[in-house]
Amino acid sequence: MTFEEMWRDLLPVGRDARTGGYRRFAWNAADLECRAWFREQAEARGLRYETDRNGNQWAVHGDLAAGDAVVTGSHLDSVPDGGAYDGPLGVISSFAAYDGLLARGADFHRPFAIVNFGDEEGARFGVACVGSRLAAGVLSPEQARELRDADGVRLPDAMAAAGYDPERIGADPELLGRIGAFVELHVEQGRHLVDVDSAVGVASAIWPHGRWRFDFHGEANHAGTTRLVDRRDPMLTYATTVLAARKKARLAGAVATFGKVAVEPNGTNAIASLVRGWLDSRAPEEEVLDQVVTEIERAARERAERDGTSVDVTRESYTPVVEFAGGLRDRIADRLGGAPVLPTGAGHDAGILSATLPTAMVFVRNPTGVSHSPAESAETADCLAGVDALTDVLADLLSDKEATA
Amino acid sequence: MTFEEMWRDLLPVGRDARTGGYRRFAWNAADLECRAWFREQAEARGLRYETDRNGNQWAVHGDLAAGDAVVTGSHLDSVPDGGAYDGPLGVISSFAAYDGLLARGADFHRPFAIVNFGDEEGARFGVACVGSRLAAGVLSPEQARELRDADGVRLPDAMAAAGYDPERIGADPELLGRIGAFVELHVEQGRHLVDVDSAVGVASAIWPHGRWRFDFHGEANHAGTTRLVDRRDPMLTYATTVLAARKKARLAGAVATFGKVAVEPNGTNAIASLVRGWLDSRAPEEEVLDQVVTEIERAARERAERDGTSVDVTRESYTPVVEFAGGLRDRIADRLGGAPVLPTGAGHDAGILSATLPTAMVFVRNPTGVSHSPAESAETADCLAGVDALTDVLADLLSDKEATA
Repeated sequence: MTFEEMWRDLLPVGRDARTGGYRRFAWNAADLECRAWFREQAEARGLRYETDRNGNQWAVHGDLAAGDAVVTGSHLDSVPDGGAYDGPLGVISSFAAYDGLLARGADFHRPFAIVNFGDEEGARFGVACVGSRLAAGVLSPEQARELRDADGVRLPDAMAAAGYDPERIGADPELLGRIGAFVELHVEQGRHLVDVDSAVGVASAIWPHGRWRFDFHGEANHAGTTRLVDRRDPMLTYATTVLAARKKARLAGAVATFGKVAVEPNGTNAIASLVRGWLDSRAPEEEVLDQVVTEIERAARERAERDGTSVDVTRESYTPVVEFAGGLRDRIADRLGGAPVLPTGAGHDAGILSATLPTAMVFVRNPTGVSHSPAESAETADCLAGVDALTDVLADLLSDKEATA
Repeated sequence: MTFEEMWRDLLPVGRDARTGGYRRFAWNAADLECRAWFREQAEARGLRYETDRNGNQWAVHGDLAAGDAVVTGSHLDSVPDGGAYDGPLGVISSFAAYDGLLARGADFHRPFAIVNFGDEEGARFGVACVGSRLAAGVLSPEQARELRDADGVRLPDAMAAAGYDPERIGADPELLGRIGAFVELHVEQGRHLVDVDSAVGVASAIWPHGRWRFDFHGEANHAGTTRLVDRRDPMLTYATTVLAARKKARLAGAVATFGKVAVEPNGTNAIASLVRGWLDSRAPEEEVLDQVVTEIERAARERAERDGTSVDVTRESYTPVVEFAGGLRDRIADRLGGAPVLPTGAGHDAGILSATLPTAMVFVRNPTGVSHSPAESAETADCLAGVDALTDVLADLLSDKEATA
């Protein structure tokens, strides 16, 4: 299958008819269909299909045990109502690049593999990059076993129902120790490449970022009969915090977003007893991020005092700043004729693994900058330029007879 | 069964183990269990059990066709996580009052019935007092047939699944024309009776009230990579509108509440594309209510312009001011030894029917004023005082040989 055939093949899987967005969540039916597709693509090319202890899928050329392997890939799951490119573009481009390597008669002096990391978006269980975090040991099996989805289903039970053994999850230094370089291709989630007029670019760093759950507690009561002065309405505290988050982020050059909310009892004629809002915040530096979140939390507590409500803040995840391996990054940028080098606010499996092994990212231009939305897009010509770039990069790395930078 | 036996019998039905609140929504399993209980209570007393065209339940003594009937009752459904008293207290007190009438050897010069109105809270289909609105012709069968619950189930299908014929719903002037007086007993949803130190009171009026759905439209995008200036985030517009609603209501002596929210895609790392918030607002006069809602809508539109979002406002329901029948109200207050007369912000079936026939309400003291919450409560002594008061009122009305005031 060509790039475009693979693209068409995967396009309808898990797409919601009403919104046009994707609902590929860890271990759900759409995700399993994507996984079956990955296995088909691997086997159709004679690549050896494997899954690791954490449910990540591998398509292997050569013997990983020889070490210093060159690995590429991304993920196939989505955010709720996500776009078609975030994740799948990297996996499809990896298979297309492998076809390109064979067509060029490239050397395979190092083992090679394509990977599909499981549960990158964290849409179902609330923690992103579960597959790579578990492998890298930054999410413990105990923590992962406590994760539940909105219906109360535990992560191990979801894995088991999909035919994976949840008893085996955990740090996998043996596997990661065999990888000499991991390169992830991804659609850009901003418009930097539009501004500099380039189809592809290379990542310099990932902003530090995290998720904080704000639980605003008040008192349920009748919306018609309760005097305003007698109310303890957490919706007011939430609303103030949403506006404070925007303001504090703007002043600090950071971003802060409340995009997910759950309300109890969520009745039209009842004052809420609980408003739960999730804050996503990111900044160029960890000090700035910490300061912004501290200020948002302070604004929430000040307003809570006025509203007679209370606020509990729980940090659900935190990823420090990621600087991609300089040697690998510069080698790729040079190989791509001086491609632009840019930072990103988005987290990726390549970011998680960067603490353990040399990683790099190649971005493909996004004409609108829109991402995590059905409107996410890229030009086919740019996608094919991305495949060519990835093929060049992989051919270069695979030609090494010694360990890479 | 005594009052207290009936109370204990109904208490566990539809109660959520985690919150202690009730989930008795129109035509769901808990609601059907409540309906079976109503029928048992009617039949155990030798009352004739009937359902009307709109699914309301009746327990009849004598022949309604004779006209000028005295009717009492309330509802058995609840808001999400509602309390035990709102609705059931009126139905249980009605059966207990009937027992009291028999024990006293009261005259039954007029037909008598106890009614359980269906879907009073509107928790499932979004419109309150569906049973009485349909009967009174203020909700058309065509409108009712369009109602859907959160899972997309249509109201007629829910009725049919419960064994009721949805083809027959609609205005029922024949039935309502046979009623000479309707008295509804209800737990107070405020603390007026605490302030005046009285176990029972009589309603003067119901504030005009309504529900408006605000749809805030923006653009889904990545919460980490989208620059603040490039965002069209409807959560900001929603938050501003929540705070404006509180302020406008306070300045006008009204109430305004956002207690229900739905967000799309509702992902932690995605800017929302749609925030849907429901406004419940009430005021002493219709002019004030209209002005408050107009001002809230204006504040929403002003902020939307700044956020690059848009706002659609849909009035989902509206109930004009209700003045309870003066003659009946004064007669009841006199009969109860000059019981306090008080207005309320809450809608009731008695309010809907007040445009068609003489109606009145008796309130029972609520020590905390809390309602639409698991914490809603009343003292047993006050509940029994309510039963005595209702028995007195009914005995008085039933002793008439001519039409009532």
